[in-house]
Amino acid sequence: MKKQHFTDVPGADVPPPAEGVKIRWLIDDETGAPNFAMRHFEIAAGGQTPFHAHDWEHEVFILTGAGTVMSADGGSDFAPGDVIFMPGGEKHCFKNTGAELVTMLCLVPLDAKKS
Amino acid sequence: MKKQHFTDVPGADVPPPAEGVKIRWLIDDETGAPNFAMRHFEIAAGGQTPFHAHDWEHEVFILTGAGTVMSADGGSDFAPGDVIFMPGGEKHCFKNTGAELVTMLCLVPLDAKKS
Repeated sequence: MKKQHFTDVPGADVPPPAEGVKIRWLIDDETGAPNFAMRHFEIAAGGQTPFHAHDWEHEVFILTGAGTVMSADGGSDFAPGDVIFMPGGEKHCFKNTGAELVTMLCLVPLDAKKS
Repeated sequence: MKKQHFTDVPGADVPPPAEGVKIRWLIDDETGAPNFAMRHFEIAAGGQTPFHAHDWEHEVFILTGAGTVMSADGGSDFAPGDVIFMPGGEKHCFKNTGAELVTMLCLVPLDAKKS
Protein backbone atom coordinates (compact mmCIF):
# COMPACT_ATOMS: atom_id res chain seq x y z
CA MET A 1 0.00 0.00 0.00
CA LYS A 2 1.23 3.47 -0.85
CA LYS A 3 -0.27 6.66 0.56
CA GLN A 4 0.65 10.29 0.04
CA HIS A 5 -1.06 13.68 -0.11
CA PHE A 6 -1.66 14.85 -3.66
CA THR A 7 0.40 18.00 -3.00
CA ASP A 8 3.41 15.77 -2.24
CA VAL A 9 3.50 14.89 -5.95
CA PRO A 10 5.36 17.53 -7.97
CA GLY A 11 3.19 19.30 -10.51
CA ALA A 12 4.34 19.93 -14.08
CA ASP A 13 3.14 22.68 -16.40
CA VAL A 14 1.34 21.26 -19.44
CA PRO A 15 2.92 22.86 -22.55
CA PRO A 16 0.95 24.93 -25.10
CA PRO A 17 -1.59 24.75 -26.62
CA ALA A 18 -2.73 24.12 -23.02
CA GLU A 19 -3.06 27.42 -21.13
CA GLY A 20 -2.57 27.66 -17.35
CA VAL A 21 -2.73 23.89 -16.80
CA LYS A 22 -0.70 21.88 -14.27
CA ILE A 23 -0.67 18.07 -14.05
CA ARG A 24 0.27 15.65 -11.28
CA TRP A 25 0.50 11.92 -12.00
CA LEU A 26 -0.79 10.66 -8.61
CA ILE A 27 -0.85 6.92 -9.40
CA ASP A 28 0.75 5.30 -12.45
CA ASP A 29 3.07 2.48 -13.48
CA GLU A 30 5.83 3.88 -11.27
CA THR A 31 3.47 3.47 -8.29
CA GLY A 32 2.88 -0.14 -9.36
CA ALA A 33 -0.48 0.34 -11.09
CA PRO A 34 -0.99 -2.34 -13.76
CA ASN A 35 -3.92 -0.90 -15.64
CA PHE A 36 -4.91 2.76 -15.32
CA ALA A 37 -3.52 6.03 -13.97
CA MET A 38 -4.89 8.75 -11.65
CA ARG A 39 -3.92 12.29 -12.59
CA HIS A 40 -4.74 15.60 -10.84
CA PHE A 41 -5.16 18.75 -12.93
CA GLU A 42 -5.21 22.41 -12.00
CA ILE A 43 -6.60 24.90 -14.53
CA ALA A 44 -6.02 28.56 -13.69
CA ALA A 45 -8.76 31.18 -14.17
CA GLY A 46 -9.02 31.77 -17.92
CA GLY A 47 -7.03 28.63 -18.72
CA GLN A 48 -7.97 25.56 -20.71
CA THR A 49 -6.75 22.21 -21.92
CA PRO A 50 -6.24 21.67 -25.68
CA PHE A 51 -9.30 20.91 -27.82
CA HIS A 52 -8.20 17.51 -29.08
CA ALA A 53 -9.15 13.85 -29.44
CA HIS A 54 -7.27 10.63 -28.71
CA ASP A 55 -7.98 6.92 -28.60
CA TRP A 56 -8.40 6.57 -24.84
CA GLU A 57 -11.20 7.54 -22.48
CA HIS A 58 -11.21 10.05 -19.60
CA GLU A 59 -12.95 9.47 -16.26
CA VAL A 60 -13.18 12.89 -14.57
CA PHE A 61 -14.31 14.10 -11.14
CA ILE A 62 -14.47 17.87 -10.54
CA LEU A 63 -13.03 18.82 -7.14
CA THR A 64 -13.15 22.65 -7.13
CA GLY A 65 -14.02 25.59 -9.36
CA ALA A 66 -16.38 26.21 -12.26
CA GLY A 67 -15.90 25.70 -15.96
CA THR A 68 -17.13 24.33 -19.23
CA VAL A 69 -16.33 21.04 -20.91
CA MET A 70 -16.43 21.31 -24.70
CA SER A 71 -17.12 18.25 -26.81
CA ALA A 72 -18.60 17.31 -30.16
CA ASP A 73 -22.01 18.08 -28.63
CA GLY A 74 -21.09 21.66 -27.67
CA GLY A 75 -20.36 23.02 -24.21
CA SER A 76 -21.64 21.93 -20.81
CA ASP A 77 -20.93 23.77 -17.56
CA PHE A 78 -19.39 21.85 -14.66
CA ALA A 79 -19.14 22.36 -10.91
CA PRO A 80 -17.66 20.46 -7.93
CA GLY A 81 -19.00 16.92 -7.63
CA ASP A 82 -19.67 16.57 -11.34
CA VAL A 83 -18.58 13.35 -13.00
CA ILE A 84 -17.64 13.33 -16.68
CA PHE A 85 -17.04 10.34 -18.94
CA MET A 86 -15.30 11.29 -22.19
CA PRO A 87 -15.09 8.28 -24.52
CA GLY A 88 -12.05 7.67 -26.70
CA GLY A 89 -12.12 9.40 -30.08
CA GLU A 90 -14.31 12.37 -29.05
CA LYS A 91 -12.84 15.89 -29.27
CA HIS A 92 -12.92 17.74 -25.96
CA CYS A 93 -11.39 20.41 -23.78
CA PHE A 94 -11.88 21.70 -20.24
CA LYS A 95 -12.06 25.47 -19.68
CA ASN A 96 -11.98 27.40 -16.43
CA THR A 97 -14.71 30.03 -16.81
CA GLY A 98 -14.74 31.17 -13.18
CA ALA A 99 -12.48 33.17 -10.86
CA GLU A 100 -11.29 30.22 -8.76
CA LEU A 101 -8.83 27.47 -9.59
CA VAL A 102 -10.42 24.44 -11.26
CA THR A 103 -9.04 21.21 -9.82
CA MET A 104 -10.10 17.80 -11.04
CA LEU A 105 -9.10 14.16 -11.17
CA CYS A 106 -8.77 12.69 -14.67
CA LEU A 107 -8.07 8.96 -14.96
CA VAL A 108 -6.84 7.26 -18.11
CA PRO A 109 -5.58 3.83 -19.15
CA LEU A 110 -1.81 3.55 -18.69
CA ASP A 111 -1.35 3.37 -22.47
CA ALA A 112 -2.12 7.11 -22.53
CA LYS A 113 1.15 7.79 -20.68
CA LYS A 114 3.19 6.22 -23.47
CA SER A 115 1.60 8.40 -26.16
CA MET B 1 -19.69 12.63 -23.44
CA LYS B 2 -21.74 12.00 -20.35
CA LYS B 3 -21.91 14.35 -17.36
CA GLN B 4 -23.86 14.16 -14.13
CA HIS B 5 -23.47 15.16 -10.49
CA PHE B 6 -22.37 12.28 -8.29
CA THR B 7 -25.48 12.68 -6.15
CA ASP B 8 -27.62 11.97 -9.24
CA VAL B 9 -26.36 8.38 -9.08
CA PRO B 10 -28.39 6.30 -6.62
CA GLY B 11 -26.36 5.00 -3.68
CA ALA B 12 -26.61 1.40 -2.47
CA ASP B 13 -25.87 0.12 1.02
CA VAL B 14 -22.92 -2.27 1.03
CA PRO B 15 -24.03 -5.42 2.90
CA PRO B 16 -22.30 -6.74 6.04
CA PRO B 17 -19.55 -7.29 7.01
CA ALA B 18 -19.30 -3.68 5.77
CA GLU B 19 -20.67 -1.27 8.40
CA GLY B 20 -22.24 2.07 7.46
CA VAL B 21 -20.94 2.02 3.88
CA LYS B 22 -22.74 3.31 0.79
CA ILE B 23 -21.50 2.89 -2.80
CA ARG B 24 -22.26 4.71 -6.04
CA TRP B 25 -20.96 3.36 -9.36
CA LEU B 26 -20.31 6.73 -11.06
CA ILE B 27 -18.71 5.39 -14.28
CA ASP B 28 -18.73 1.77 -15.40
CA ASP B 29 -19.53 -0.45 -18.37
CA GLU B 30 -23.11 0.83 -18.43
CA THR B 31 -21.69 4.34 -18.96
CA GLY B 32 -19.59 2.98 -21.83
CA ALA B 33 -16.27 2.64 -19.99
CA PRO B 34 -14.15 -0.08 -21.61
CA ASN B 35 -11.50 -0.55 -18.96
CA PHE B 36 -11.99 0.69 -15.38
CA ALA B 37 -14.75 1.99 -13.13
CA MET B 38 -15.12 5.05 -10.88
CA ARG B 39 -16.97 4.42 -7.62
CA HIS B 40 -17.88 6.87 -4.82
CA PHE B 41 -18.01 5.60 -1.23
CA GLU B 42 -19.52 7.07 1.91
CA ILE B 43 -18.45 5.65 5.26
CA ALA B 44 -20.49 6.81 8.26
CA ALA B 45 -18.84 7.76 11.56
CA GLY B 46 -17.76 4.49 13.22
CA GLY B 47 -18.22 2.53 9.98
CA GLN B 48 -15.75 0.54 7.93
CA THR B 49 -15.32 -1.55 4.81
CA PRO B 50 -14.55 -5.28 5.22
CA PHE B 51 -10.96 -6.33 5.94
CA HIS B 52 -10.39 -8.42 2.83
CA ALA B 53 -8.17 -9.03 -0.19
CA HIS B 54 -8.91 -9.54 -3.88
CA ASP B 55 -6.99 -9.80 -7.14
CA TRP B 56 -7.55 -6.24 -8.36
CA GLU B 57 -6.05 -2.93 -7.32
CA HIS B 58 -7.72 0.14 -5.77
CA GLU B 59 -6.90 3.73 -6.71
CA VAL B 60 -8.36 5.93 -3.95
CA PHE B 61 -8.71 9.70 -3.46
CA ILE B 62 -10.05 10.92 -0.10
CA LEU B 63 -12.62 13.71 -0.53
CA THR B 64 -13.85 14.38 3.03
CA GLY B 65 -13.48 13.11 6.57
CA ALA B 66 -10.80 11.37 8.59
CA GLY B 67 -10.01 7.71 8.98
CA THR B 68 -7.52 4.90 8.93
CA VAL B 69 -6.63 2.54 6.12
CA MET B 70 -5.57 -0.89 7.43
CA SER B 71 -3.29 -3.09 5.37
CA ALA B 72 -0.71 -5.81 5.80
CA ASP B 73 1.65 -3.09 7.06
CA GLY B 74 -0.70 -1.94 9.85
CA GLY B 75 -2.78 1.23 9.96
CA SER B 76 -2.21 4.64 8.40
CA ASP B 77 -4.40 7.69 9.03
CA PHE B 78 -5.91 9.50 6.05
CA ALA B 79 -7.36 12.96 5.44
CA PRO B 80 -8.82 14.87 2.47
CA GLY B 81 -6.48 15.05 -0.50
CA ASP B 82 -4.72 11.80 0.37
CA VAL B 83 -4.11 9.36 -2.46
CA ILE B 84 -3.92 5.62 -1.75
CA PHE B 85 -2.79 2.85 -4.06
CA MET B 86 -3.78 -0.60 -2.80
CA PRO B 87 -2.26 -3.33 -5.00
CA GLY B 88 -4.17 -6.50 -5.82
CA GLY B 89 -3.77 -9.29 -3.28
CA GLU B 90 -3.14 -7.08 -0.22
CA LYS B 91 -5.62 -7.25 2.68
CA HIS B 92 -7.13 -3.86 3.51
CA CYS B 93 -10.03 -1.95 4.97
CA PHE B 94 -11.02 1.70 5.32
CA LYS B 95 -12.33 2.90 8.72
CA ASN B 96 -13.99 6.19 9.59
CA THR B 97 -12.34 7.22 12.87
CA GLY B 98 -13.75 10.76 12.96
CA ALA B 99 -17.11 12.44 13.55
CA GLU B 100 -17.72 13.46 9.92
CA LEU B 101 -18.72 11.39 6.92
CA VAL B 102 -15.77 9.91 5.03
CA THR B 103 -16.28 10.22 1.28
CA MET B 104 -13.79 8.91 -1.24
CA LEU B 105 -13.38 7.85 -4.83
CA CYS B 106 -12.19 4.27 -5.35
CA LEU B 107 -11.42 3.14 -8.89
CA VAL B 108 -11.06 -0.47 -9.96
CA PRO B 109 -10.70 -2.44 -13.19
CA LEU B 110 -14.10 -3.37 -14.62
CA ASP B 111 -13.39 -7.05 -13.89
CA ALA B 112 -14.00 -6.22 -10.22
CA LYS B 113 -17.67 -5.55 -10.99
CA LYS B 114 -18.17 -9.10 -12.22
CA SER B 115 -16.76 -10.65 -9.06
